Amino acid sequence: MQIKLSKSYGFCFGVKRAIKIAEKSPDAITSGPLIHNTQEINRLKSEFNVSTAHNINEIKNKNKVIIRTHGIPKQDLKELQDNNAQVTDATCPYVTKPQQICEDMSKKGYQIIVFGDIAHPEVKSVMSYSTTKPVVVTNTKELENQYIKSRVAIVSQTTKKHEDFSKVVTYLTRKCKEVRVFNTICNATFDNQDAVYDLSLEADVMIIIGGKNSSNTKQLHSISRDNCPDSYHIESPDEIEKEWFSDKKLCGVSAGASTPEWIIQNIVNKIKEI
Amino acid sequence: MQIKLSKSYGFCFGVKRAIKIAEKSPDAITSGPLIHNTQEINRLKSEFNVSTAHNINEIKNKNKVIIRTHGIPKQDLKELQDNNAQVTDATCPYVTKPQQICEDMSKKGYQIIVFGDIAHPEVKSVMSYSTTKPVVVTNTKELENQYIKSRVAIVSQTTKKHEDFSKVVTYLTRKCKEVRVFNTICNATFDNQDAVYDLSLEADVMIIIGGKNSSNTKQLHSISRDNCPDSYHIESPDEIEKEWFSDKKLCGVSAGASTPEWIIQNIVNKIKEI
Repeated sequence: MQIKLSKSYGFCFGVKRAIKIAEKSPDAITSGPLIHNTQEINRLKSEFNVSTAHNINEIKNKNKVIIRTHGIPKQDLKELQDNNAQVTDATCPYVTKPQQICEDMSKKGYQIIVFGDIAHPEVKSVMSYSTTKPVVVTNTKELENQYIKSRVAIVSQTTKKHEDFSKVVTYLTRKCKEVRVFNTICNATFDNQDAVYDLSLEADVMIIIGGKNSSNTKQLHSISRDNCPDSYHIESPDEIEKEWFSDKKLCGVSAGASTPEWIIQNIVNKIKEI
Repeated sequence: MQIKLSKSYGFCFGVKRAIKIAEKSPDAITSGPLIHNTQEINRLKSEFNVSTAHNINEIKNKNKVIIRTHGIPKQDLKELQDNNAQVTDATCPYVTKPQQICEDMSKKGYQIIVFGDIAHPEVKSVMSYSTTKPVVVTNTKELENQYIKSRVAIVSQTTKKHEDFSKVVTYLTRKCKEVRVFNTICNATFDNQDAVYDLSLEADVMIIIGGKNSSNTKQLHSISRDNCPDSYHIESPDEIEKEWFSDKKLCGVSAGASTPEWIIQNIVNKIKEI
């Protein structure tokens, strides 16, 4: 069986930047998981003593604080910046962008629509910048129960699928007089998605590597599964099962934006052994 | 065979308004056909001596001028207003809207995309308001050969299908950072289209009445044909053919926004005779 890596996969700009920040801030504490990858977070803990707080109260008044890539609510950030000695903002610039758009557009009187998962930390941080209550949806069905104004602005969670985003946009353009569409899906997401789409068309088994709570990895898995039903989303080599590869000719491999290269290599080696 | 009229059809607000203006301006001359319906234009000529100019030069320095529902290029309008005694603007307010948007958005630095037929008088009038050269397309294919900026504003010809408009919007949202979508498809168009969609699902023959050069009538015909292959676009009773109705149970009837009620009645009567 041949193993083929996706043309674009793994660490994106924002994740690389955040890890560099963490490595340069030994003993710091992060506001929630820095990225959605447990193994890499464990590595930062063991090599640089960078720990993870799961509650904003845990980091108040701490010496060195790092803001996670997904950002945190505006009020929390302000409070930390006012009270903590050293706050380093590792919010991905691709997330800062929709935060600013929400603030700007809501001030200009547009109703804010956030296309994303309301429980996702990035969405929580983005929506907090709207000066009016935003509408957060993942599909058109959820829009049907909402009061939609005639002038709206929409941003997307950076890791969503464009196909789903455009369905919501289409629904809004039918309902509203003006829709300001800000495509805030990040380029790395686009590139990884396009590449996994192509690879899953030719492969007969696909391994998608990334945190189980990683939104962008879940999207990659969903795209892959549409073309190649034998697509598996795994986090570590232990999850691999031998029978996935029996009678297969081409195994495609891709990884989410928060998956470090060393995990990908471990998994590729494990597949090679099989 | 039963005959059923569509729930919404025929004269829209803008056409009704223009005809009232024409009827109150005997002996006036219009800048091109006032509406896209030859029969109604003939009636205005014979009853009110309102005539049609086919070239802007014909109406320069004329006494009473009426601007057609579709509008005319900005420069032409200005010239007429500067030099003619009495210019009455019968441009549909739903067309004035995209004109203003093009002007405003181009001044704000957005590249203007007009979704519409470049040969249609409405599109010619709308695009003339952009202070920069707009891109005019009817589908995504035509966009592929164009240089598209990262910030664009899009308007639609008022009589287009939303389904086609949203395909172009989807393409743009993938390419651009910001897309300002102005849904300028008019409500009458929406209502007539929705109603013809429903009716063509139950009818086994559909008669769509309206000028052969009427964009909105062509759209109604296209929607109807998708659901009911035996859909005919006609302008006058003479075009009706007996065999269209043999073995049919339900004949649906709809009409474009520039089709007067008296033509619709003539046609319904002719079908009843059959």
